[in-house]
Amino acid sequence: MRISFIGAGRVAHHLVHALQNKHQIVQIYSRTQMHAQDLAQRAGAEAVSALHQLDVNIDLLIIAVSDSAISSVIADVHEYLPQVLAVHTSGSTDIAKLTAVHARAGVLYPLQTFSLEREIDWSNTPIFVEAVLQNDEQNLHALAAELSQRVYVYDSVQRLSLHLAAVFACNFSNYCYDMAKQVVDAKAVDFSLLYPLILETAKKATAADPKVMQTGPAMRKDENILQMHQQMLEQGQREDLAQVYGLMSSQIIKRHDGA
Amino acid sequence: MRISFIGAGRVAHHLVHALQNKHQIVQIYSRTQMHAQDLAQRAGAEAVSALHQLDVNIDLLIIAVSDSAISSVIADVHEYLPQVLAVHTSGSTDIAKLTAVHARAGVLYPLQTFSLEREIDWSNTPIFVEAVLQNDEQNLHALAAELSQRVYVYDSVQRLSLHLAAVFACNFSNYCYDMAKQVVDAKAVDFSLLYPLILETAKKATAADPKVMQTGPAMRKDENILQMHQQMLEQGQREDLAQVYGLMSSQIIKRHDGA
Repeated sequence: MRISFIGAGRVAHHLVHALQNKHQIVQIYSRTQMHAQDLAQRAGAEAVSALHQLDVNIDLLIIAVSDSAISSVIADVHEYLPQVLAVHTSGSTDIAKLTAVHARAGVLYPLQTFSLEREIDWSNTPIFVEAVLQNDEQNLHALAAELSQRVYVYDSVQRLSLHLAAVFACNFSNYCYDMAKQVVDAKAVDFSLLYPLILETAKKATAADPKVMQTGPAMRKDENILQMHQQMLEQGQREDLAQVYGLMSSQIIKRHDGA
Repeated sequence: MRISFIGAGRVAHHLVHALQNKHQIVQIYSRTQMHAQDLAQRAGAEAVSALHQLDVNIDLLIIAVSDSAISSVIADVHEYLPQVLAVHTSGSTDIAKLTAVHARAGVLYPLQTFSLEREIDWSNTPIFVEAVLQNDEQNLHALAAELSQRVYVYDSVQRLSLHLAAVFACNFSNYCYDMAKQVVDAKAVDFSLLYPLILETAKKATAADPKVMQTGPAMRKDENILQMHQQMLEQGQREDLAQVYGLMSSQIIKRHDGA
């Protein structure tokens, strides 16, 4: 396939890297010329920074931009490439945002957390596809199946619930790690001591229902420890951490009440 | 060493299992006779359910009970075994809780999350020891070093901050997984789709500062998505999840403001 990209951020970066061996990456557009050039160079593609420069002769346009930019991008894209299959890569944006202006629309959503510093294990990364035309859906499915063993046709409602869940499972658990690091940093204790615990907790959640795997003072309704921890956080003037501690603990207690 | 245990819960279970090849497990006490018997049988030890039955002729008594029970247990233990080195296994309880009644006290705290269903990778599990007498501390250190490559002498203040951090890194991140599962369960979407994301997020946090690794709509200050997610949770009448979502997102936004 001949594939162009709108966007040169983390998702674009990893998709280009994963697709460039089997497909021709034609153009990469970014408002920031330098970002487009960096990524285009690695992929043997052309960097463009004006949408009117987009090559019409492609099979697929992948729009990998922030959710808030998708609507304006598709309006502009439609002007220059009205017939091309255009997909976004977002978990949270309904396909309707595309179809409102562009009939031949689709979605290619990889459920993963992307950093520029880390390789993605694509073969285990679930990818969710959706398209208006059946033929486009088949082609997207085939493309995704080259990357991953786990490709699913999901509609936008299912995808939205997955993405919301991912915010809890990924973004919020990462913030929990961040808070933990702040706690030990304040006492000059090495955060890496917590690594085995962090990894084992994640592994446990993929082996059994995390509700069953819950441990800790809130789960045990140990009021003395809960109070002591709150006092430690307040004495350290960490009202922010104390708030999270209080809310999470009270919810864990409720969830396991009478269990 | 001749070692007895007070308590037959998860921590006792895993410690007995790890120590029984090189040491003699003499007795296991539990108020619940059946729990003591189960564990004693596996360790070739005697089960006891009254403290006056404790054998005085041991080198170490490991008190692996809930934090709230430690004070009353050590008072009773001291009556029958006034000379024996007695250690607790808790991250949150100051050694002073023991020394208040029993001079020859110590701590053996493995920083890990214990489930009955899962084997512990002891060699990578940090263990923190502390003792009143230097000789006891050396012996505890040697014992812990048989289990793990990562043994540290930590005082109670350092240990407390580690345990508080562990609540964030382990108990609260697990609750995030639990909440994520509830979100997808409500839409009959398979929770296992989130496994690669959960594992990669944990791995990332052990490779770089989790603050730097933060992703998601709050990090990007994407107000549209944040609002949509809040609405989804409120429409699903999940006021509890909406509260966590709101608090965590506002703190993530603040933490990365101007970053």
